[in-house]
Amino acid sequence: MARIIDGTEISRVMREQMAQEVAALKAAGITPGLSVVLVGNNPASQAYVSSKTKACEALGMRGQTLNLPENVSTQELFAVIDRLNADSSVHGILVQLPLPAHLPYKAVLEHIHPDKDVDGFHPLNAGLAFVGDPRAFVPCTPAGIMEMIRRENIPTRGKHAVIVGRSLIVSKPLASLLMAPGPDATVTLTHRHTQDLASFTRQADILIVAVGKQNLITADMVKPGVVVIDVGQNRVPDDSSPRGYRMVGDVDYAAVSEKAEAITPVPGGVGPMTITMLLANTLQAARQMQARGTSGNPR
Amino acid sequence: MARIIDGTEISRVMREQMAQEVAALKAAGITPGLSVVLVGNNPASQAYVSSKTKACEALGMRGQTLNLPENVSTQELFAVIDRLNADSSVHGILVQLPLPAHLPYKAVLEHIHPDKDVDGFHPLNAGLAFVGDPRAFVPCTPAGIMEMIRRENIPTRGKHAVIVGRSLIVSKPLASLLMAPGPDATVTLTHRHTQDLASFTRQADILIVAVGKQNLITADMVKPGVVVIDVGQNRVPDDSSPRGYRMVGDVDYAAVSEKAEAITPVPGGVGPMTITMLLANTLQAARQMQARGTSGNPR
Repeated sequence: MARIIDGTEISRVMREQMAQEVAALKAAGITPGLSVVLVGNNPASQAYVSSKTKACEALGMRGQTLNLPENVSTQELFAVIDRLNADSSVHGILVQLPLPAHLPYKAVLEHIHPDKDVDGFHPLNAGLAFVGDPRAFVPCTPAGIMEMIRRENIPTRGKHAVIVGRSLIVSKPLASLLMAPGPDATVTLTHRHTQDLASFTRQADILIVAVGKQNLITADMVKPGVVVIDVGQNRVPDDSSPRGYRMVGDVDYAAVSEKAEAITPVPGGVGPMTITMLLANTLQAARQMQARGTSGNPR
Repeated sequence: MARIIDGTEISRVMREQMAQEVAALKAAGITPGLSVVLVGNNPASQAYVSSKTKACEALGMRGQTLNLPENVSTQELFAVIDRLNADSSVHGILVQLPLPAHLPYKAVLEHIHPDKDVDGFHPLNAGLAFVGDPRAFVPCTPAGIMEMIRRENIPTRGKHAVIVGRSLIVSKPLASLLMAPGPDATVTLTHRHTQDLASFTRQADILIVAVGKQNLITADMVKPGVVVIDVGQNRVPDDSSPRGYRMVGDVDYAAVSEKAEAITPVPGGVGPMTITMLLANTLQAARQMQARGTSGNPR
């Protein structure tokens, strides 16, 4: 049976370490702060935002939510972001997605100052991450996967990492990180147009699945000894759960666990790491602003 | 025997089309202009720069070279770039690499206004290219390879493209372009740490080699019917040549040609496309500046 890669436990250890860094920054007069902009009243978005700001506060950081009405104009939203960009007590800014359709989400994300873009969605950060620049804010999910791999001592050099899915916020940045000097993996990126997906997944030493389709990866599609990172988050009706559903990943967990060397569960695998990396990125933003002695002047 | 993908001929056709666009822009009062900054007296760099500006002029564009002394300071170089950034008659700016060791080349490249960065080396352009934004300037060599593939009607959707090498200016951007919606290739990126390289290259429907090592790819490493794009540029001593050397790629051309469906020669394959795409990027810069009615204001 596969070793379980416990994202909750890795997150706990990381957050403990980060709490100490926060304490040190506070002793130096800086309280790292994350401001989340939430437009409208989508209950799922509200829950996500609340868990993010609460996680900040649990670490001793400042977590602020700015709730704007559903019908806010682009200009009003830009003005809010401008104010946060200029506020030296704000280190990280995050605009919760999805935005209402009347707002130009790309322009909104580009309006966040790159030095405070802790989601890593500004194209300047995408480019800095692409070239391996340490100033980059790497999007939280791929950053969290790399952190799990490092902390679990999973070898990557010369290993074949196969990624299923090609999203801009998970798969493509992850491919870029895994192939870079250091991790040094051979990387294959597959997607809906890939012919004979199983012929690729069976080659994987490390298999990362980020599609959003239950049971996409079955046991016959992996080789013995594979390490499986399951990024999928799918709701399955479950009357025995108080919520009426449970979460499963993209991988047939029970069957694949019997062949894999290690596997991330859903829930409790990649999920907790994503918020942990948001905290890490906010801390990085605070440290970088401290080092520059700025509140995020254009670089 | 493989069909030869003739980069010189594709370039000729493209440049003819571009000359018409240049004429139309000139009729509208805009002469697209490229300014190349050359530091020092490296003969190879001088030759490259000269071929770039001459190619501009052949199209009716303006090609300008600013030759700065080897010992120019960072501040002086920045001042030159600032002036070009602000000059509305300059649409493309290129700093010829390599720079002398005392100059911080990353900071220099980031000093070029992204709207004029026709080499596509500014991290903002790397990020825009990464997310598939049409404003991006894509580095000339991968852009040229994509253009060859399109114009030669080489199918990419669902095909397995294997890239050998992981450079930031060729292989990584090319991987990103090939896997994106549209081209839709399955992409594997291999490099010096890849174990059993041949097991990957043999899977390739499209094989792109960008390493700089003569005869790296031999006939036994490809499958029949592969399309081969050889980015290598290696000098081989040759007494029969007036220069005393000839250029070869990374692929054993004679032997691989017998198995491949199509192949790019060296010279006359990818090489001519690179300058052609520099012209295309400069034209794109001029068009974008015309559309904005700006001389490259911050976006």
